[in-house]
Amino acid sequence: MRISALSAATNVPVATIKYYLREGLVPAGHLTSSTQAQYDETHVERLRLVRALLGPAGLTIAQARRVLAAIDEPATDTLGRLAQAQHATTKDAEATDTAAAERLVAQAGWQVDPSSPELAQLAAALAAIDHARFEIPEPSLEVYLRTMAEIAEAEIEGIPTDSDEAAIRYSVLGTILVEPLLLALRRLAQQDASIRRFGGGIG
Amino acid sequence: MRISALSAATNVPVATIKYYLREGLVPAGHLTSSTQAQYDETHVERLRLVRALLGPAGLTIAQARRVLAAIDEPATDTLGRLAQAQHATTKDAEATDTAAAERLVAQAGWQVDPSSPELAQLAAALAAIDHARFEIPEPSLEVYLRTMAEIAEAEIEGIPTDSDEAAIRYSVLGTILVEPLLLALRRLAQQDASIRRFGGGIG
Repeated sequence: MRISALSAATNVPVATIKYYLREGLVPAGHLTSSTQAQYDETHVERLRLVRALLGPAGLTIAQARRVLAAIDEPATDTLGRLAQAQHATTKDAEATDTAAAERLVAQAGWQVDPSSPELAQLAAALAAIDHARFEIPEPSLEVYLRTMAEIAEAEIEGIPTDSDEAAIRYSVLGTILVEPLLLALRRLAQQDASIRRFGGGIG
Repeated sequence: MRISALSAATNVPVATIKYYLREGLVPAGHLTSSTQAQYDETHVERLRLVRALLGPAGLTIAQARRVLAAIDEPATDTLGRLAQAQHATTKDAEATDTAAAERLVAQAGWQVDPSSPELAQLAAALAAIDHARFEIPEPSLEVYLRTMAEIAEAEIEGIPTDSDEAAIRYSVLGTILVEPLLLALRRLAQQDASIRRFGGGIG
């Protein structure tokens, strides 16, 4: 199909598609003349993924490019490609001492890459809690570790195995899009729990 | 103590304290002359809380003012004050249809205020997932609902009961500061689970 048909099929304006092509987010079409290129279903799929990454998932162009690079990599190593795509979406955390974060991960019994940005993210979260003189009660901390392991287990269990591209798409979108869902659910569950604890109507 | 001693006790510059006083985040001291005011331990405590809210917790001045208003309200209704403080820290979500969010909360069996901003936040999260054509597998969704209820239960259980101010401080800081912690833990647990599922070393 020509770029106009690709635009119609995906509801993405031609100018936006051209921008993605220039930014390398969507692979070039097959040139049929010096000014004409043909696109196919793989372009439709890729465009939908790019829109999801840049739209609801809120990635920057640079982050999306790294996620797509992980998908396109000819490696046979699914795990490495998954990790690479995930790292691309992790917020850069300020360099902090990761000792406390490593202790917590050890307490949970998890095997993680010591150089992964997620460890720096955990260290930054712990430093902020410490800085605010907030103390997490030990029973809550144990619940956090146990429930996050349960969540991850269910999520990794649900990863589609038909192709690495499907696995990475699922895993990246799932990680990012489910974050606000979990946070909203936690706040609503807190509301329910405080109504039950402090009783009465709703303030 | 004078403002200079308050500054020394809290490590907050005098100019910053004066700014908080003007913004109404810290109550005025007791005037001993037309240019001198005395401050006490309550000011030290309040300044520490303001620093935590604006710093690690990342609230805006307006949000912090609403949290503090909930703390200062002379009401006897703990639950109402808790809810008010929590709402103040909830990101404003775009107006969306909350029907799907309400169904999910009903599925979880939670009692929540139908007008609470957390419900709009959940609706926005669900809309983004839908928009990206991402489908959460039912087993994962069930785990999300169950684990968030468990987390909330443990957290509300841990709320200090010595004073409403302590309860609100704990609940607001806990909600906000623990969010990045949970997200980082989830990503690390995913890493552990994918290493176990897709085997081999770390990519």
